[in-house]
Amino acid sequence: MPAAIPPLIRASVMVDHGLSRNANGSNDMSSDHIILTLSCVNKPGIVAAVSTYLFESGYNILEANQFDDTETHLFFMRVVLNPVREDTGIAALKVGFELIGDHFEMKWTMRSKANKQRVMILVSKFDHCLTDLIYRWRIGDISMDISAIVSNYPRSTYEHLDLDGIPFHYLPITKETKLEQEALIWNLVEETKTDFVVLARYMQILSDGLSAKLSGKCINIHHSFLPGFKGAKPYSQAYDRGVKLIGATAHYVTADLDEGPIIEQDVERINHFATPDDLVRKGRDIERRVLARALTWHLEDRVFPNGRRTVVFTE
Amino acid sequence: MPAAIPPLIRASVMVDHGLSRNANGSNDMSSDHIILTLSCVNKPGIVAAVSTYLFESGYNILEANQFDDTETHLFFMRVVLNPVREDTGIAALKVGFELIGDHFEMKWTMRSKANKQRVMILVSKFDHCLTDLIYRWRIGDISMDISAIVSNYPRSTYEHLDLDGIPFHYLPITKETKLEQEALIWNLVEETKTDFVVLARYMQILSDGLSAKLSGKCINIHHSFLPGFKGAKPYSQAYDRGVKLIGATAHYVTADLDEGPIIEQDVERINHFATPDDLVRKGRDIERRVLARALTWHLEDRVFPNGRRTVVFTE
Amino acid sequence: MPAAIPPLIRASVMVDHGLSRNANGSNDMSSDHIILTLSCVNKPGIVAAVSTYLFESGYNILEANQFDDTETHLFFMRVVLNPVREDTGIAALKVGFELIGDHFEMKWTMRSKANKQRVMILVSKFDHCLTDLIYRWRIGDISMDISAIVSNYPRSTYEHLDLDGIPFHYLPITKETKLEQEALIWNLVEETKTDFVVLARYMQILSDGLSAKLSGKCINIHHSFLPGFKGAKPYSQAYDRGVKLIGATAHYVTADLDEGPIIEQDVERINHFATPDDLVRKGRDIERRVLARALTWHLEDRVFPNGRRTVVFTE
Amino acid sequence: MPAAIPPLIRASVMVDHGLSRNANGSNDMSSDHIILTLSCVNKPGIVAAVSTYLFESGYNILEANQFDDTETHLFFMRVVLNPVREDTGIAALKVGFELIGDHFEMKWTMRSKANKQRVMILVSKFDHCLTDLIYRWRIGDISMDISAIVSNYPRSTYEHLDLDGIPFHYLPITKETKLEQEALIWNLVEETKTDFVVLARYMQILSDGLSAKLSGKCINIHHSFLPGFKGAKPYSQAYDRGVKLIGATAHYVTADLDEGPIIEQDVERINHFATPDDLVRKGRDIERRVLARALTWHLEDRVFPNGRRTVVFTE
Repeated sequence: MPAAIPPLIRASVMVDHGLSRNANGSNDMSSDHIILTLSCVNKPGIVAAVSTYLFESGYNILEANQFDDTETHLFFMRVVLNPVREDTGIAALKVGFELIGDHFEMKWTMRSKANKQRVMILVSKFDHCLTDLIYRWRIGDISMDISAIVSNYPRSTYEHLDLDGIPFHYLPITKETKLEQEALIWNLVEETKTDFVVLARYMQILSDGLSAKLSGKCINIHHSFLPGFKGAKPYSQAYDRGVKLIGATAHYVTADLDEGPIIEQDVERINHFATPDDLVRKGRDIERRVLARALTWHLEDRVFPNGRRTVVFTE
Repeated sequence: MPAAIPPLIRASVMVDHGLSRNANGSNDMSSDHIILTLSCVNKPGIVAAVSTYLFESGYNILEANQFDDTETHLFFMRVVLNPVREDTGIAALKVGFELIGDHFEMKWTMRSKANKQRVMILVSKFDHCLTDLIYRWRIGDISMDISAIVSNYPRSTYEHLDLDGIPFHYLPITKETKLEQEALIWNLVEETKTDFVVLARYMQILSDGLSAKLSGKCINIHHSFLPGFKGAKPYSQAYDRGVKLIGATAHYVTADLDEGPIIEQDVERINHFATPDDLVRKGRDIERRVLARALTWHLEDRVFPNGRRTVVFTE
Repeated sequence: MPAAIPPLIRASVMVDHGLSRNANGSNDMSSDHIILTLSCVNKPGIVAAVSTYLFESGYNILEANQFDDTETHLFFMRVVLNPVREDTGIAALKVGFELIGDHFEMKWTMRSKANKQRVMILVSKFDHCLTDLIYRWRIGDISMDISAIVSNYPRSTYEHLDLDGIPFHYLPITKETKLEQEALIWNLVEETKTDFVVLARYMQILSDGLSAKLSGKCINIHHSFLPGFKGAKPYSQAYDRGVKLIGATAHYVTADLDEGPIIEQDVERINHFATPDDLVRKGRDIERRVLARALTWHLEDRVFPNGRRTVVFTE
Repeated sequence: MPAAIPPLIRASVMVDHGLSRNANGSNDMSSDHIILTLSCVNKPGIVAAVSTYLFESGYNILEANQFDDTETHLFFMRVVLNPVREDTGIAALKVGFELIGDHFEMKWTMRSKANKQRVMILVSKFDHCLTDLIYRWRIGDISMDISAIVSNYPRSTYEHLDLDGIPFHYLPITKETKLEQEALIWNLVEETKTDFVVLARYMQILSDGLSAKLSGKCINIHHSFLPGFKGAKPYSQAYDRGVKLIGATAHYVTADLDEGPIIEQDVERINHFATPDDLVRKGRDIERRVLARALTWHLEDRVFPNGRRTVVFTE
């Protein structure tokens, strides 16, 4: 009874050929993948509107995650798509999506997976996170362009680390020069068209001013299992309290120090043998893997701030 | 420019009142929640067709998970919905969905969350999993009706366990009577309208015949981290091999012993001090929590067999 | 060259026959095992003095753990022994050890492993820890005598729990009657010759007076990963803060609430889907296993308070 | 009652001054630390004989671990000491210990902690373990001298890795040249006075001949949770089996491939989203930390082979 077949199904029948056409390989190349993220107050019809629009525009949904926060009544969605036919281009897809975005009053983003974000890494004396991020970037583990490395220590501090041409900026800081140094950092963010900043054990506390400018665009790795042991020397605090597990926390930077929305945390077991130095040593492993996970998820648009909390559509 | 507003959005506008009406509380009662699961060969348009149908039928999507297996080209989806207006009833929703199901050649199920599945628990001498399941059932942790408890040991084996009126069946077994005993089990499954069978450390190996009948309808907890240490006395095997972590595995029962699709696994660290008895003791904790998780996920329709693997949309 | 053989070696040669005699089995019976614990300011010669005394008294060292805290300069040791020959009795061994204990100004204990400690369990409405402890006690997982169960809820609260003859005391409490209720608890501790008290999710805050009386003789399970989320409703606090792991902490009770020395902690991963109720549900699993581990270790004399910290010689 | 004071206590009284003398700092310098390891058939008197000898020789016990394997009746002990007075030298201490070693028929070693072992690293194309080991060596995390790096890939494969002067040897291998290549490796081991060899994802299978020569002197990192997924492509095997956790295993190399005694293992959770490539990526993190832990423990003399198993006195 063809008459009874709803339009969507007719359409999908037609599209099948399109699918079979691009089944031979082009599906596997992620160069044409597009990531759509959106959040808005929850209403019926969002998924239907979005998926129908994408389908009728000739796109195939490869991945989709959604979350309906029943406390805040907010709705979060992440979709990865690729064109079923020759790509009509993301520009056109964006224009058409605006109507849906406006109607549901969505915060939404749509970008080609091929466009890597530009990331600036801030570091101090300890380079275990920096070294790890550069290694993961080099082997393609983390997909990003590193716009610059900024440190309050000179390049020689990392003499055995091959920066592979990444611009390095030595920006020393003192109580007196903090304002000027932060201004230089911000200029660098703008000049280098940096999308995102990583505090990879950058031991300076950002001023409220810079924190505000970087809010939501900056991640920090705190070397404790927050909210335990905020502030300085968390491993000494952990030692004094005699905890049996130590951890690390990756969170977005906000004006409120160590209070930003948490993206990822992990822990490792310790025992009474462990000295404060042992905690620091064990902590390095936790810090670098927690920061790497959180950064990867952010760069893949998997993380949505949700008040003091985050929605993370993990791999 | 109303003319430009696509039908789906118009519809959702209309429905908004519906939403605001049922915003006051009825959303919170899960008594009217419906769980839809489906799997089929992946094609463009599935999500659009499903979500549009649900939306136009007056249902709100509370949760949705989907997975596109790029190896097998199979698509898996789980949706939890509730009616936006007075519930027109699941029966009507099912009838209408058949067209979509047929078109995409889906395997699909649709059931009211309020309808609990009937679970039969098989157990032998060790009762740590049985005791744990009954406790979780009693406090509402696991939502199920326990149709029967079957053991090859007499009721007195569990004299301190309050079965709270659950029928207990003592079905002893010997090499000679295995066929008859399994026939009795199967009769019981049918008489009690059992939907699902749990081997809660039931130390008998099911015959191929019974395994086949129960295939996909039965879960087993194996006391090792499969595929390591198949067969008998896995903790002794683990001790002899000197592993540093022991584990447990919950898997669907298939004719192929210890080879069924894995639903959940977990491990705990051990050291050289641990005797085989210590492994057994530590193992009890792992077994009961792994089995409880796997059973809960199955009963919430979160688990999809996918060849030798499973898709698990975890909480 | 016998003359060159130091006395200790000569002695051990003689004793070899003793060993070969009791090699046939009696080694396996732990009924005659003795646990010695000691702590003192570290000095050279402690291990030599202790091990030589035990050896010359005809005892064999089955297990030994020691820890030299280089921060506090305190030395901690736990030894499990059994008699090589017919047991001369722990009384004699104690008398002889006093000289060593006095000389090194040790805090020390020596007890037969066969003498079970008497444990009182305090509980409120939630019975998951109580149920778990009783199960472990019944199957011999935790070696103790349960002197009494005390609750501020009536016996009927746990109607499905078989107390197997353990005395149950319903001691309701109100702001006004707190003092009297705690007096009744303390009387019960003394009457029942209770060695150790377990707060198994006993939701009442002990007064400083009772805390002081029970200091070092009482363990509490706090349903958070301390020092995060002290005080009431830790799971709600954890939810609000958006942590990615939740935990539980077993610690000795001191006058300073939630600040007692930590014995054991564990965590589980959560995600943004988890509601506060989900955290409570997941938390039950963590709480019961953390409390069971900590209690087991304490009852086996494996835990030494060390200021705000603990030394735990784990299995 | 001086007459009643046993000789050991008298001695320790005398030595107290010695202790107070060297309390000012020399205790903190680990340059004079000595590590003693021993194993033998268990007998009464071992601890007494050893600790008394060390004490009377003027040494202080900083750490001590022991394990009495009741299955094999073998006794294992590790002791870290430092001289209470001016160091009489390890040579003298060794000579005196021989009598005890001979009497108890011990396998024993005694070495100065300051003498670093010489480690050779074998690697193939994947350099994540190599990179990690070199970083840990550079920052002092792992105390060793790297005698050489050997690869069947040319130096340019690791062009961005600063070897900091460590000799690199490119030893290509083919079926035909395997014998010769292994001969070159062995010569290198001898020429460079290498104490220990690390297979840091060296993807060649050693011949029985070389395995035998390196037995107990070589560690391998296998990229699966052994005994699951032996042999080639373990991550593909893990994917096909649909396990929910993947792992890595560090073990001593023996002639029996993937069957050597396990030193350390760890796992990470995966889900149905994970492709074989994802497993490889996640696996890198597990492999490098498992190998680093196992190597560190071996180099600190914390690992004792015990048949197919190991005794590991972890930090």
